[in-house]
Amino acid sequence: MIKSPICELCGIEYPVFQGGMAWISDGALAAAVSNAGGLGIISAMNAGADYLRREIAAARALTDKPFGVNIMLMSPHADEVAKVVAEESVPVVTTGAGSPSKYTEEWLAAGIVVIPVVASVASAKLAVRSGAAAVVAEGQESGGHIGELTTMALVPQVCDAVDVPVIAAGGIGDGRGMAAALMLGACGVQMGTRFLVAKECGVHKNYKDMVLRASDISTVTTGRRFGGNTCRCIKNSFARDFLKREYLPETTAEDVANLGVGALYRAAVEGDTKTGCFLAGQISGMVNKEETAEEIVRGVCAECELILNGSGKWVR
Amino acid sequence: MIKSPICELCGIEYPVFQGGMAWISDGALAAAVSNAGGLGIISAMNAGADYLRREIAAARALTDKPFGVNIMLMSPHADEVAKVVAEESVPVVTTGAGSPSKYTEEWLAAGIVVIPVVASVASAKLAVRSGAAAVVAEGQESGGHIGELTTMALVPQVCDAVDVPVIAAGGIGDGRGMAAALMLGACGVQMGTRFLVAKECGVHKNYKDMVLRASDISTVTTGRRFGGNTCRCIKNSFARDFLKREYLPETTAEDVANLGVGALYRAAVEGDTKTGCFLAGQISGMVNKEETAEEIVRGVCAECELILNGSGKWVR
Repeated sequence: MIKSPICELCGIEYPVFQGGMAWISDGALAAAVSNAGGLGIISAMNAGADYLRREIAAARALTDKPFGVNIMLMSPHADEVAKVVAEESVPVVTTGAGSPSKYTEEWLAAGIVVIPVVASVASAKLAVRSGAAAVVAEGQESGGHIGELTTMALVPQVCDAVDVPVIAAGGIGDGRGMAAALMLGACGVQMGTRFLVAKECGVHKNYKDMVLRASDISTVTTGRRFGGNTCRCIKNSFARDFLKREYLPETTAEDVANLGVGALYRAAVEGDTKTGCFLAGQISGMVNKEETAEEIVRGVCAECELILNGSGKWVR
Repeated sequence: MIKSPICELCGIEYPVFQGGMAWISDGALAAAVSNAGGLGIISAMNAGADYLRREIAAARALTDKPFGVNIMLMSPHADEVAKVVAEESVPVVTTGAGSPSKYTEEWLAAGIVVIPVVASVASAKLAVRSGAAAVVAEGQESGGHIGELTTMALVPQVCDAVDVPVIAAGGIGDGRGMAAALMLGACGVQMGTRFLVAKECGVHKNYKDMVLRASDISTVTTGRRFGGNTCRCIKNSFARDFLKREYLPETTAEDVANLGVGALYRAAVEGDTKTGCFLAGQISGMVNKEETAEEIVRGVCAECELILNGSGKWVR
């Protein structure tokens, strides 16, 4: 069995995190992943305290294993959900889109393991200075909001820069990706797209179908022109239209921000394949079947173990 | 020692290619890498037959080991340099920026091992159909002309799609990256940026210094707006100015193409840190010392071997 310091740190069996995906990673999915031995993570997304309390209760009703909450620091409700995770003593908190230093003292006092998602060496260092127990180094092959560095380039540079465990995210869809991440110096992986098609994931069927049918070149990135809000999503009519408008001479950064409003809800909840924004990673092309969270966690780790055990074949 | 089918295919000791870099990978660098046991590759760049014949002769004067030539298929001289490699019976030819199918028959008849550089599953399949003995799957973390997929996402998808050996390129700067590439299914690696700072590389000292001093976030990509000619380079005043002009409302695709003319020559030959275009990969941040080609090839492989041999630590 694959084991790493992340297992002890988070009290989990396998060093596999399920990424926090807005409108997708609810209490039910998080509980399923945690029951499978990984770390399920509820997305606090842009919702308020009530939503998060409900999803935490839902997860707790389904599992007694540790799970996490992902807080998008750009959320208008960041302050209140930051308080909720402390009050609820959520075992692990991951954060995205900024530095969580403003909240870490309270979280650490509540015994929470704080694991920011970072996209550069500087943000990894800042995270560790403010008390992070580990970091998720996320490459731009990920779905959703992304940085510039890729997993292959980012992970070793983050590992060289900080002395806490590093979890690799972005471009990891199977045991090969997990084994590669471990070679780069990571001691665990986070997967989003692969868990999006888990049987226990309540996302709209059309969203799962978009991922299952995707090829290697099915994703595009929107929001590059003005920066700061780059997203990777599946190339559908919404994405094509977004890109066309983004690059019109008269378009402003504010226009671009407004283009995306409601689009993820239309994808994840309504399954609107035309006007929805289907956030997904570049590995969508190799995510070809719906499985249970347990099949995913155990299958990826078993394949990883097999590859690691066979790696002697390269050495003569 | 790390060994793979690529070693037998190309007659080399270590499964390490040195990427073809215009104005940088000449006969001297290629010979140094080949003498070190890797595969040195001469860039035919946009030059004509005479330049290539001269560099091939230079390499042959320095080594009796196999080496390669990289042909940019968009070069106006592609037809003539394609003929030169056949006449000279160059052991290995790699190709970039398109499908080499128009030349492969002649090359195969001359006993050349043809290894196209690909950035997607479709181009990998096309390459194999037209007679490629292997492919280099190059992620967008690479320096120079790039595609969209990252190494982590591209390599396993290409490995699943073709039945020839796959060499991984992009984001590989040390033994960790090499070990990761092998886990993804590759059986060799190609490195450009790391060899750019080799002692035997005749590129201008200022170019080497730009790479040696770079951090993880020092590269940017130009040419994304109109597509088809995306380049990764170090963020200097040339790159900033390029990006500013690229996104001006009135700028056309032709304007963008003209912006880059002569800029790589100014960087590589003249060492002009302001107006030169310093193509380099995202791993520039971890390329921190000038070493001989032999130190690079053997050092990377030794580190890779150490990591592979130690990978049992993850399995309990």
